[in-house]
Amino acid sequence: MAGCVSPPWKALLLKALETNSHLKHSSFFQLATIGPNGRPSNRTVVFRGFEEGSDKIHINTDTRSNKVEEIKHVPFAEICWYFTDSWEQFRINGEIDYIDFSNKDLAKLQQREKAWFASSPKSRLQYLGPSPGLPVICQETVKETHLEPYAGPVAAFCLLVLDPDQVDYLNLKSNERMAFTFTLSEDGSKIWKFETINP
Amino acid sequence: MAGCVSPPWKALLLKALETNSHLKHSSFFQLATIGPNGRPSNRTVVFRGFEEGSDKIHINTDTRSNKVEEIKHVPFAEICWYFTDSWEQFRINGEIDYIDFSNKDLAKLQQREKAWFASSPKSRLQYLGPSPGLPVICQETVKETHLEPYAGPVAAFCLLVLDPDQVDYLNLKSNERMAFTFTLSEDGSKIWKFETINP
Repeated sequence: MAGCVSPPWKALLLKALETNSHLKHSSFFQLATIGPNGRPSNRTVVFRGFEEGSDKIHINTDTRSNKVEEIKHVPFAEICWYFTDSWEQFRINGEIDYIDFSNKDLAKLQQREKAWFASSPKSRLQYLGPSPGLPVICQETVKETHLEPYAGPVAAFCLLVLDPDQVDYLNLKSNERMAFTFTLSEDGSKIWKFETINP
Repeated sequence: MAGCVSPPWKALLLKALETNSHLKHSSFFQLATIGPNGRPSNRTVVFRGFEEGSDKIHINTDTRSNKVEEIKHVPFAEICWYFTDSWEQFRINGEIDYIDFSNKDLAKLQQREKAWFASSPKSRLQYLGPSPGLPVICQETVKETHLEPYAGPVAAFCLLVLDPDQVDYLNLKSNERMAFTFTLSEDGSKIWKFETINP
C-alpha cells in the first residue's frame, strides 16, 4: 500500500489558507498551461480542495474552455498562488489530468460527480451557458436556465486534477524560500524533501 | 511616424489600477513563461509601469533568475492580473524582451538605467544578494551590502519588457468579457479592436 505521509508543503499551504481565510480571493490562484501556439497561457481559477487522502489539487472547469484543449495537448501546469495577507507564494508544478463526461474510469467519474455536488447550485448553472470565449451572438438568446438540485453533472462540467511534483515556497515577510521535490519509495509512495534556497 | 492611439484595454487597466490602488498587492501579477523542460512556469512579479508613450509593460528581475533563461529560450509570456477588489482580470499575452547589462542597444540600456533609478534603494540591494533559486550555502556568509544612491544598475539587474498583442478582459461583477487584438496600420501603428465574448 502506498504511504500517505502528508507532504511538508501541504501543511504550509493549509496554514496559509487558514491565515488568509477572511479574504474571499484566498482560494483563487493562477494556473499556467501551454497554448496550441506554444505560448504560455495563464488564468485565475478557484481551488476546490485536495483529493481525499492525497496532495492532488482539484479545479472545476468548462469542457469547452481553452484550457481543457491545452491540457489535452500538453498535460502540465504550474499554479502560482499568492496569499495577499500573509505574503506567501506557492508555485506548484505537476502533471494535470482532465475528467470529463467521456472518461472511462469509474472512480474518476465518481470524483467528477462529487466535485459537481460540492459546487454551489448557482455555479453549476454556468455550465449551461454559452461556450466560454466565443463571441456573444445575441443578448436576447440568453435562456432562463434551471437545474434540479439532485441532477448530476452536465456534459460541459469537467474536473481538473493537478498532481504536484515540485513546489516552490516563498515567504516575503520572513524572506525565506524552499524548494520541495520528491523521490518514490519502494512501495510507490512519494517521499518529499526540501531545500532552503535563496529568495 | 507610428501613431500613439492608446489601446482601449489600457484605459480599463489604468482604471482598475486606480480603483484598487489602496491595496499594495494591486501592482502584483502572475507572469507565465515556458521552462526549459517544456513545462509552464508561473510566478508573481511587480508591475513597474508602461513604457513611455506605449503599451509595453515593464518588470524588473534578476538576470540570474530562471525566468530570464526561459525567456531567452521562448520569448513569449502571459500575464494574469487579477484585481481582488474590483474583481477584474486581465490576461495579457505577448512577446517579451530582456534588457541586461550586455545589451548593445543604447536606447534599451537607457531604459534599464531609468528602471533602476525608479526602483527604491532597498529593492536595488537585492541584486547584490546571492543567486536566487540556488541553495542557501551558509547564513554566515551574508555580507553587509551598500550601494551609493547615484550608483548605476548592477550586473544582475535586468529589465523585462512585454509587448502585448492579445488581451482578454473579464469583469466578474458585471460578468462581461472582452477579447482585444490588433492589426497593423500602414504607418506601422497598432490598431486595436475588441469583441465581446462569453465569460
